[in-house]
Amino acid sequence: MTYTRLRSEIDNKVGRITLSKPDEFNRMPPAFWSEFPDAIEEMDESGAIRALVISAEGKHFTSGMDTSVFTSGRSGPEYEAGRRGERSRRHIARLQDSFSVIERVRMPVIAAIQGACIGGGVDMISACDMRYCTSDAFFCIQEINIGMAADVGTLQRLPNLIPTGLMRELAYTGRRLFAEEAKSIGLVNEVYDTHSHMLEAVMSIAEEIAKKSPLAVASTKHLLGYGEEHSVSDTLDYQTLWMGSISQGGEMAKYFNAKQQGNEPEFDDLPPLSDD
Amino acid sequence: MTYTRLRSEIDNKVGRITLSKPDEFNRMPPAFWSEFPDAIEEMDESGAIRALVISAEGKHFTSGMDTSVFTSGRSGPEYEAGRRGERSRRHIARLQDSFSVIERVRMPVIAAIQGACIGGGVDMISACDMRYCTSDAFFCIQEINIGMAADVGTLQRLPNLIPTGLMRELAYTGRRLFAEEAKSIGLVNEVYDTHSHMLEAVMSIAEEIAKKSPLAVASTKHLLGYGEEHSVSDTLDYQTLWMGSISQGGEMAKYFNAKQQGNEPEFDDLPPLSDD
Amino acid sequence: MTYTRLRSEIDNKVGRITLSKPDEFNRMPPAFWSEFPDAIEEMDESGAIRALVISAEGKHFTSGMDTSVFTSGRSGPEYEAGRRGERSRRHIARLQDSFSVIERVRMPVIAAIQGACIGGGVDMISACDMRYCTSDAFFCIQEINIGMAADVGTLQRLPNLIPTGLMRELAYTGRRLFAEEAKSIGLVNEVYDTHSHMLEAVMSIAEEIAKKSPLAVASTKHLLGYGEEHSVSDTLDYQTLWMGSISQGGEMAKYFNAKQQGNEPEFDDLPPLSDD
Amino acid sequence: MTYTRLRSEIDNKVGRITLSKPDEFNRMPPAFWSEFPDAIEEMDESGAIRALVISAEGKHFTSGMDTSVFTSGRSGPEYEAGRRGERSRRHIARLQDSFSVIERVRMPVIAAIQGACIGGGVDMISACDMRYCTSDAFFCIQEINIGMAADVGTLQRLPNLIPTGLMRELAYTGRRLFAEEAKSIGLVNEVYDTHSHMLEAVMSIAEEIAKKSPLAVASTKHLLGYGEEHSVSDTLDYQTLWMGSISQGGEMAKYFNAKQQGNEPEFDDLPPLSDD
Amino acid sequence: MTYTRLRSEIDNKVGRITLSKPDEFNRMPPAFWSEFPDAIEEMDESGAIRALVISAEGKHFTSGMDTSVFTSGRSGPEYEAGRRGERSRRHIARLQDSFSVIERVRMPVIAAIQGACIGGGVDMISACDMRYCTSDAFFCIQEINIGMAADVGTLQRLPNLIPTGLMRELAYTGRRLFAEEAKSIGLVNEVYDTHSHMLEAVMSIAEEIAKKSPLAVASTKHLLGYGEEHSVSDTLDYQTLWMGSISQGGEMAKYFNAKQQGNEPEFDDLPPLSDD
Amino acid sequence: MTYTRLRSEIDNKVGRITLSKPDEFNRMPPAFWSEFPDAIEEMDESGAIRALVISAEGKHFTSGMDTSVFTSGRSGPEYEAGRRGERSRRHIARLQDSFSVIERVRMPVIAAIQGACIGGGVDMISACDMRYCTSDAFFCIQEINIGMAADVGTLQRLPNLIPTGLMRELAYTGRRLFAEEAKSIGLVNEVYDTHSHMLEAVMSIAEEIAKKSPLAVASTKHLLGYGEEHSVSDTLDYQTLWMGSISQGGEMAKYFNAKQQGNEPEFDDLPPLSDD
Repeated sequence: MTYTRLRSEIDNKVGRITLSKPDEFNRMPPAFWSEFPDAIEEMDESGAIRALVISAEGKHFTSGMDTSVFTSGRSGPEYEAGRRGERSRRHIARLQDSFSVIERVRMPVIAAIQGACIGGGVDMISACDMRYCTSDAFFCIQEINIGMAADVGTLQRLPNLIPTGLMRELAYTGRRLFAEEAKSIGLVNEVYDTHSHMLEAVMSIAEEIAKKSPLAVASTKHLLGYGEEHSVSDTLDYQTLWMGSISQGGEMAKYFNAKQQGNEPEFDDLPPLSDD
Repeated sequence: MTYTRLRSEIDNKVGRITLSKPDEFNRMPPAFWSEFPDAIEEMDESGAIRALVISAEGKHFTSGMDTSVFTSGRSGPEYEAGRRGERSRRHIARLQDSFSVIERVRMPVIAAIQGACIGGGVDMISACDMRYCTSDAFFCIQEINIGMAADVGTLQRLPNLIPTGLMRELAYTGRRLFAEEAKSIGLVNEVYDTHSHMLEAVMSIAEEIAKKSPLAVASTKHLLGYGEEHSVSDTLDYQTLWMGSISQGGEMAKYFNAKQQGNEPEFDDLPPLSDD
Repeated sequence: MTYTRLRSEIDNKVGRITLSKPDEFNRMPPAFWSEFPDAIEEMDESGAIRALVISAEGKHFTSGMDTSVFTSGRSGPEYEAGRRGERSRRHIARLQDSFSVIERVRMPVIAAIQGACIGGGVDMISACDMRYCTSDAFFCIQEINIGMAADVGTLQRLPNLIPTGLMRELAYTGRRLFAEEAKSIGLVNEVYDTHSHMLEAVMSIAEEIAKKSPLAVASTKHLLGYGEEHSVSDTLDYQTLWMGSISQGGEMAKYFNAKQQGNEPEFDDLPPLSDD
Repeated sequence: MTYTRLRSEIDNKVGRITLSKPDEFNRMPPAFWSEFPDAIEEMDESGAIRALVISAEGKHFTSGMDTSVFTSGRSGPEYEAGRRGERSRRHIARLQDSFSVIERVRMPVIAAIQGACIGGGVDMISACDMRYCTSDAFFCIQEINIGMAADVGTLQRLPNLIPTGLMRELAYTGRRLFAEEAKSIGLVNEVYDTHSHMLEAVMSIAEEIAKKSPLAVASTKHLLGYGEEHSVSDTLDYQTLWMGSISQGGEMAKYFNAKQQGNEPEFDDLPPLSDD
Repeated sequence: MTYTRLRSEIDNKVGRITLSKPDEFNRMPPAFWSEFPDAIEEMDESGAIRALVISAEGKHFTSGMDTSVFTSGRSGPEYEAGRRGERSRRHIARLQDSFSVIERVRMPVIAAIQGACIGGGVDMISACDMRYCTSDAFFCIQEINIGMAADVGTLQRLPNLIPTGLMRELAYTGRRLFAEEAKSIGLVNEVYDTHSHMLEAVMSIAEEIAKKSPLAVASTKHLLGYGEEHSVSDTLDYQTLWMGSISQGGEMAKYFNAKQQGNEPEFDDLPPLSDD
Repeated sequence: MTYTRLRSEIDNKVGRITLSKPDEFNRMPPAFWSEFPDAIEEMDESGAIRALVISAEGKHFTSGMDTSVFTSGRSGPEYEAGRRGERSRRHIARLQDSFSVIERVRMPVIAAIQGACIGGGVDMISACDMRYCTSDAFFCIQEINIGMAADVGTLQRLPNLIPTGLMRELAYTGRRLFAEEAKSIGLVNEVYDTHSHMLEAVMSIAEEIAKKSPLAVASTKHLLGYGEEHSVSDTLDYQTLWMGSISQGGEMAKYFNAKQQGNEPEFDDLPPLSDD
């Protein structure tokens, strides 16, 4: 597939999706909202991509959702109000799903952020597994500034990433959160001085992940996600089945065999999704 | 679309899906499991179908899932055990989803059952909104008879339809449940003496539904489904928003206007799904 | 308090609320929706009422909610759409709460139904502890017939009272459910031939309850309600605390003491709500 | 182990636990509450028992819990009130667990009931998989008659077995529910004219279950139990893992192999619990 | 209304509630527990107050609950133990509700804390949206020091605000948590050197919030609260309805219109609660 | 009881469990997994131990689970695959339970960690109430490095202790987390320069806890644990019953009496578990 708002590449088992409209501050018009989930899901298809890095060209990560997206979903042909409501509900659900796909794919997804990360950008990075940024990065729940509640995931996921009191200050005042504060509260794992240093470091983390058993990594991601929506006891029980069904010890045997022979283990790719 | 295992028709705003392999007892081979959900979803697409009737040709409703379906999902290329487990999990999830789609479409889905309804057939009718049958119909959780647990929805949905003690007797012994008992415990709403009488009556119910506001019917279906997975208080709260957003009173106004003028109200179709 | 739409009486520790506008088919205009919950809560205040019977004068139990109620909550001064939505949401929540109060009071609430029980009437009786009716009674989810989804509790509570398949038939078609069928599916506990026979029988059940320990009855009602919203294991755990805190054995001692002396036990009233 | 309040036997892969104090109406004194769960768990230990029948000698199934049980758990050495409360809580939890064990063992548990089934008896049979009774059987939530709330499972489990309105009538009035009504509402699966006819029929059902794959039966029981505490979608997901881990198709292969050779399949026992 | 334990003021759309008994260390006697929720709810009534600041006069924020409150709820007329238990339960529930009201009102509630914030004070500020303090502030879960478990919300809400390990250290040892540590772990958003600097800064934040659309702010608060009690997927779904019903885009239109004309947008107040 | 992998001591109402195989880096072979939960439960039995400290001899806290544990649970006699799966599931559940017991005992459990805390060590300390470490300590989710998902609690409990983004980095890369970072993110409460300083400080905290009412401490632990698995409103409600049943004010009376007489209160031990 080819995309107009982003670039999709693969580099030694690490996928990269790059927002590629720096002259438009990588804003998110309607096309973005279909291209982005398509690109993410495409990465998962073959089973050969073991980590995915999302970054952006230019001075800013993204200026967020185009208001045209909001408007388009709510207007339309002259249906009566309830039918317009039904369409609007589906429209918002589809926007939300464009970022929920980040949680559904099998490999970890890492966001590398510079400059402004605004509105829809915060929705997006909140759904990622890990976040890293440059020292000039800042985050802003822009929706409140233009008279609406953030509706594509920020209000659902960001509270799990930062302290509640700060979450509410950001959500009610729309003020900017800068890189150092983002690091100190755990929103980003690390701050780098330049864009290239950040990308170098993030790629190195992604490559480290790519060396692990992709079955173990995918299992870990799935179980962490499951745990966020279920109780500890339910998740412990669920994991006993997962271990018997999917994470059965074959990879561990491969690891110890390789080590015994003085080698690094080389784990097979996951099965492609289409091969069922 | 054209299908090999079933027939899909529309008759005056009522959709009909007919299992069309009576000479094979309407068994469910791999092709069935992709055709069936496609046919169901296709019915929802235009917004013009207001009720959906599932029936079958011949002496029996269905003899259930082909064992080839089970086997195919568990074999495959020579992956190590964990990867085979991952594929098998996706395979079963896809089978389950072939019937869950019945719950997701906007219109009520009605099953009209004669003769044997076995194994996968019980999975299917358990996901329908309502069930009607002929006096020669019987139901059988066949899986236990061949050494496995029912895995495509029967164990999840049938307990919500019949008394628990009987559910367990059927699930542990694999005995047949006959029409009259099915009626007395509420599994089917009515029993008819012949196939044609059943279809006539069921089509009449479907047509009655098709005269109602499709927005009100779809709202009712969605809210009943939501209630099955949430508490009463959560569902009451959810409904306050649904009423404000989707069921806003326009249909009621139409009803009273028509009545005032001595007419039956004619409600508009729902918006097509693609028109977003 | 005095009421315009109903009559509130107390008879030997049994409370009675009677819909008292038979010439208007006991319809439910705006006044009803504030009087009814007030009357119910007033019954709970003193701690001396141990069972509550809801019945109606005239040929019909109730013709249901006035459409004026629906309309009033959605119109109003010229707020913009979102603010109207906020008001409408509160309005519906308040209507819902007018019947949820039935579940919150400490004593069992029993509905005695004759003739038509339509729309809001079904919402109301679904929230009661038990239902009894005459042989000419019928029930109708009238909302679907006028183009809307039932929004005051029917879709939340009736599915817990009758088989799912029949629930959906009633909700989608708006057809009448008659007394005998209502009995056979468990919606009503018993059917009586005349109104007076019904009232006599229902009062006798209420008086039987009034002889029990009101602390044990209130505990049972609360725990059954808790169980409807929580898992079996959560409710078992919750009950271990309830027994230690509220149902501590004093009543049982009183029972055995009385029996030992050849008497019927006489249990004290519950504390009044205001006496905290 | 030997027991004083019951008899434990094994008969061709079917376990039988018989309440054996008919001269004391099979009442449940403190000894019963430790012997009963021990006997149940012992049946599960070897993996060779595939169904378990609980019945009772004499005219009545059981007269229920001795009040001495209640009293003992609440008295004790002279602790201050909070410590007594902590002990009492553990005491009630242990009583509850004496019946919850019925749900935890791997094989189906069937109750065969004659005459009176009162108080603790209702708690017990509510936790069983299936219930059968003689025509002279009756059920009574006796606790309300002596001034307390039923606290060993009746309030948690019986509402899942019978219509809510009747549940509440029984729980508030303490009246008897007789065999025919119990059958018509689904509490018992079948009514028999004599004790011996009942035992014959119930043993025949148990033997039928014993012929099935015990892995498939245990899987079915576990998944049905899981479904009662989780949503349909959670349970469907959980089952995809169960199928990959435990119900993997080996039994189905055995079934088809046997059938191909004109034989009935003979399934292996489950592994003993201690063999880990 | 007039209050004896606090002062209630409105200042340019920002409400202020000030604990006004500095000579009594703003302790919380019975009167406080009814005045405080009344004052909070009164602020929400008109729809014109867009943010609410809670602060205290004197050297300390509050010394917490009077033990007289605890005692009064547990004594009373000579009821038997179970009835005393029932009254006590209602008493504690009412105390809890005095702070839960902070979460229910439509505007953000901000706590500005100096000196001691002890016992009931920690319960209170844990229910607020944001917390700010002076450098001499400290927090103490005093209940454990006097032999009881904190019972008015601290054990429920504080674990969502600070790391679990520290939460437990504070709850088990009753040690003081000082301002700088409170800032570093996210309990408070900022620390100020003096009381007046804190109030100036906090009022400035409140005024910033007051400039936003109150509909968007109230929507954000409600959705964040909903998310704390529901799963991410449930909350995303709930929000699709909220956007259609309440946050419909009218405010955004107002924003862009104002901006286009070079003005700051002026958003209307929310509807008063009584105007339904 | 005597143990081979650890030492169990009691010191002035504080229990101490010490991993005692420093020459084997306190690795966790099969014996460990049965001795550890036995030692923990034994500490709870008498009711006299009010806090429990887990520490380790030697340079490292623990090198984690022996792979022999993993292998043993998955091999076994020649059962067919499904039966092996059933056994494996029980095996993993039992391993998980070896650490869940930390949450079930009545007293707080404190981990004091030096050097390496790897694999199973992270599972263990994640289940503790509080964690303290020396400046040379480090933590490592070793499982991912050897090709598997952590399956004994790390994936369930660690996400509640540290920021999600860092959790995922550690879980996917298997990198070491060092003491200072562990402190700054809240995983450990404090870092000490030497092992003996750490033990001194931790014992001092444990002794502080031991001076409090053990009923209040146990109530606090139970309620905090309950809150982690339930909503805020459910936990508030649950606490109203707990206060009436278990934390009834006797301890507070003792505290005030002692203080009035110028003494420190001396609280009684909890009842022994066996004394029911």
